[in-house]
Amino acid sequence: MDAMLRVNMTAQTINPETVKEEYKQLGGRGLIAKLMLDEVKPKCHPLGINSKLIFASGLLNGTIVSSAGRLSIGCKSPLTNGIKESNSGGIFANRMAQMGIKSIIIEGKPEHPTLYILIIYKNRFKLVNADEYQGKGVYETAGQILQSYPDAAIACIGPAGEKFYKSAGVAVTDSNGTPSRFCGRGGIGAVMGSKGIKAIIIPEKGKVDIYDTDNFKSSLNKYSDILKEAKSTKSYKNQGTAALVKRVYHLGGLPINNFSCDTSLDWNKISGETMINNIKNRGGEGKINHACMPGCLVQCSNVYVDKNGKTIVSPLEYETIALLGSNLGIWDLDSIAILNYECNDIGLDSIEIGNSLGVALEAGVASFGDYEAIHQLFKEIRQGTPLGRILGNGARTTGEVYGLVNVPEVKGQGFPGYDPRAIKGMGVTYATSAMGADHTAGPTARSEVQHESPEGQSELSKKMQVLLPLFDCTGLCLFTVGAVGPNPDLVLELINYRFGWKLDLDWLHKMSIETLRMEHLFNQQVGFATNNRLPEAFTERPLPNLGTVFDVPDDDLDRVITQLSG
Amino acid sequence: MDAMLRVNMTAQTINPETVKEEYKQLGGRGLIAKLMLDEVKPKCHPLGINSKLIFASGLLNGTIVSSAGRLSIGCKSPLTNGIKESNSGGIFANRMAQMGIKSIIIEGKPEHPTLYILIIYKNRFKLVNADEYQGKGVYETAGQILQSYPDAAIACIGPAGEKFYKSAGVAVTDSNGTPSRFCGRGGIGAVMGSKGIKAIIIPEKGKVDIYDTDNFKSSLNKYSDILKEAKSTKSYKNQGTAALVKRVYHLGGLPINNFSCDTSLDWNKISGETMINNIKNRGGEGKINHACMPGCLVQCSNVYVDKNGKTIVSPLEYETIALLGSNLGIWDLDSIAILNYECNDIGLDSIEIGNSLGVALEAGVASFGDYEAIHQLFKEIRQGTPLGRILGNGARTTGEVYGLVNVPEVKGQGFPGYDPRAIKGMGVTYATSAMGADHTAGPTARSEVQHESPEGQSELSKKMQVLLPLFDCTGLCLFTVGAVGPNPDLVLELINYRFGWKLDLDWLHKMSIETLRMEHLFNQQVGFATNNRLPEAFTERPLPNLGTVFDVPDDDLDRVITQLSG
Repeated sequence: MDAMLRVNMTAQTINPETVKEEYKQLGGRGLIAKLMLDEVKPKCHPLGINSKLIFASGLLNGTIVSSAGRLSIGCKSPLTNGIKESNSGGIFANRMAQMGIKSIIIEGKPEHPTLYILIIYKNRFKLVNADEYQGKGVYETAGQILQSYPDAAIACIGPAGEKFYKSAGVAVTDSNGTPSRFCGRGGIGAVMGSKGIKAIIIPEKGKVDIYDTDNFKSSLNKYSDILKEAKSTKSYKNQGTAALVKRVYHLGGLPINNFSCDTSLDWNKISGETMINNIKNRGGEGKINHACMPGCLVQCSNVYVDKNGKTIVSPLEYETIALLGSNLGIWDLDSIAILNYECNDIGLDSIEIGNSLGVALEAGVASFGDYEAIHQLFKEIRQGTPLGRILGNGARTTGEVYGLVNVPEVKGQGFPGYDPRAIKGMGVTYATSAMGADHTAGPTARSEVQHESPEGQSELSKKMQVLLPLFDCTGLCLFTVGAVGPNPDLVLELINYRFGWKLDLDWLHKMSIETLRMEHLFNQQVGFATNNRLPEAFTERPLPNLGTVFDVPDDDLDRVITQLSG
Repeated sequence: MDAMLRVNMTAQTINPETVKEEYKQLGGRGLIAKLMLDEVKPKCHPLGINSKLIFASGLLNGTIVSSAGRLSIGCKSPLTNGIKESNSGGIFANRMAQMGIKSIIIEGKPEHPTLYILIIYKNRFKLVNADEYQGKGVYETAGQILQSYPDAAIACIGPAGEKFYKSAGVAVTDSNGTPSRFCGRGGIGAVMGSKGIKAIIIPEKGKVDIYDTDNFKSSLNKYSDILKEAKSTKSYKNQGTAALVKRVYHLGGLPINNFSCDTSLDWNKISGETMINNIKNRGGEGKINHACMPGCLVQCSNVYVDKNGKTIVSPLEYETIALLGSNLGIWDLDSIAILNYECNDIGLDSIEIGNSLGVALEAGVASFGDYEAIHQLFKEIRQGTPLGRILGNGARTTGEVYGLVNVPEVKGQGFPGYDPRAIKGMGVTYATSAMGADHTAGPTARSEVQHESPEGQSELSKKMQVLLPLFDCTGLCLFTVGAVGPNPDLVLELINYRFGWKLDLDWLHKMSIETLRMEHLFNQQVGFATNNRLPEAFTERPLPNLGTVFDVPDDDLDRVITQLSG
């Protein structure tokens, strides 16, 4: 990698900077944590002139390694007030690495509200006015950009980011030019909006230099073989993440009606099997085994179609089915898919907005299951009415505005689709991750453990939290876990041959540990992003179907924090 | 004092408990701090079943000591998530002490939303249904109660508290039965609303036993003489707190248009002098030298009237003039008085709501100075429209919903009427008090120092913060500072003769220190209520008229915190 691109939106300058020695072996999430500590005032306002938005390449981005094209974006989160790294699939990160850009640091902010597009060519960069895109959804935005730049990789925001909603994400285009891969969580879209950046585009393809081509290839072959054969790959290839509907429902952890009750036995209406059957039976544009980035062997994605075979949304995934579906009392995949499209187009995190809506429905804004009313609420969110703004600012704000106690959030970030009273390892992750309630920070739902028991959950969560930076720093998709989890040496080989390094497994492990330590350190410096407990709505209000509360002892949670904080 | 009254709203029980030995010498704010540490889970939801609302008598409440009838109410604040004590004038606290009630601890919450009135007689208590009062303003509520209980002292909430607004206060009746004395700050009205308590009433008068009547009387005479002659008393008697308009304006610290600029030289239109002249010239019901509690020698209050001599509001005070006036671009006392009445009737803290409105106007919800539009916004707040709910939940929430960076708040609580870039000691208090931005926690604006200089401000603020619990624990009004500040021994004598104690000045000092220590300890245990800095909008954006920022060094702030945390 050649350069870190510093974009100052106050001065309207773009400067490529040589990568400092200490940053060279960092990537993605780890690089973000280091840059945040080095450059960002911890107590700055997340939407203010001192905050920075950082795009960071993972170490394997830009190569042809399967599933190694995840894009990491980070900042001080307006949702949690703490550090945030959010990553997505799509083609942007590979393209960024291919342009020789290790990271993009966007700082300052325009004096007057103006929208810009940042265009990145090889060694050539420009900011162009984008006021014509104001208020446009991400689909129209990407579509219009692709007319001028047909091969472009795009990262953009929708109206949610422009309005600084704390649930705004950054949409990234996939292999089809569809901007539906989201760096969704933590309100990073609002930070991009506050910088006046509507989109970043990379119009041209390129390639990265591989230091030792032959050895890289042979390691890659080993990796690909193992990846193809991994049990997890087969599962993802089959139903994608939607397979989790059945699993999580049977563990008792599917969120239903704002994580409040088990009123329905209709889980199969929204299951992965039903989804796949719909796609297969309806034909037309429908697709399964869809890849969000070229060359991906996992192919967890899909194109979900209506009864006439016309695309509704791509992809339809578990978290969205849970949060915009069962959590709102909507037990119909077509309806969920339409809400998902709306949600994407506005540029929202479907998890956060599903939590906002769940809270609002419990507060009486509309009824659970009332699809038409909920669809109408998305219009309010898009328009920025007062109600739309409340919802767009996430579950905690919605809960505060309506004075509701049952709000599923930690550090201000809404729960993913796993009730922590049923899947307690997830609760440990929600409570102790520097990121707030985030399943990708330490996913435990697929582990074969007694999820209802408080025993061993803190160890499990901690193990997963320590494992995850391996993916998030390299740009590898979490869904390669079946191949990479037992074979970290393969990843190490690929990195070493890519760069001509001679690093060992100890370095790889330290990369993870150090990433977590830096993230917790940033939060400690913020000073008010450090609530490491679940809300009492989950520690004291039993889950009706199981009768359980989240009862992993506080001491266990504190021990995890202490260990992760280094 | 005889009893602590424990009211459990889940079980609907009222139990008078013997006062434990360790609580006997505590009062008001200090007793609240101790009870919060002893009984309240720091991480509880402020509106949830584990939170508690505490009314606490000050040690001199119930006596005939002038200005010793302040009522302290405390809880975990929904606004700051930290500890909160808010106190007000009026007749409730004296009456409470006269009934032998040292404190009322309201815990639990009704299973279904229902409103109650708690009635306190001597040794007899009851909860009665009050659903008929639902949605009623505090004036109508108090008026209706007084029809049945003509002599009652009342503490009640308005629609704001019923809707759990984080800017909701508790209104307390004064000598005239007017419910316009507010325990305003921190959202304690929302906590009262969450407990289902619309009002607490004490229908009958009583008296407290004085242990050593003769000595008490002679100390009281000394105290009264000194109080009458104090310079501060004369100032308060003259224009009330409104005298501050002139002073703060000339220090450059009057908040104008969301603490943003100095666009107007019309300060005299809203000054104390103009207020007094209006009242005097208009005659009718107008009053100056009005006392909120019987026997008060300070008499800072007033009854402000319209051109026909009809009451608009009583009292009109500095903070309201600043926050609902100049901060919103309204430079007319009659308009401010009408907004003040609306604000009171809804049961809102005029400081917090003035900040919410200032933020909303900067965000473009209406124009600064547009009285009609602002008046309309109060209707939305009363009705609980989405916009009304946003505003009712305070400046931070309003700022978050509109994505605004310039939000005058610390720990979630809006600034009182002193720009900390001009009156820097106030900024130190805002930053370092356990209460969030609260002028009464450590007022420095009346001190004769160079307010613009960062030098010495942390010492001044600390001195005032240490002095204040002397007032807040005894039930003495802050406005007795001229008498009490230099003569703490007088207060000690009164306490000793009242109870038959033999305490020394060291005890009195320790009471203050210990109160502050306990408050900071509670916040530390909360863990996420500990931001001890001003927002960057005040440390980096210069005040246009002075060109200054708040530049008291962080180290100074940290030192204050360390010292106050004991």
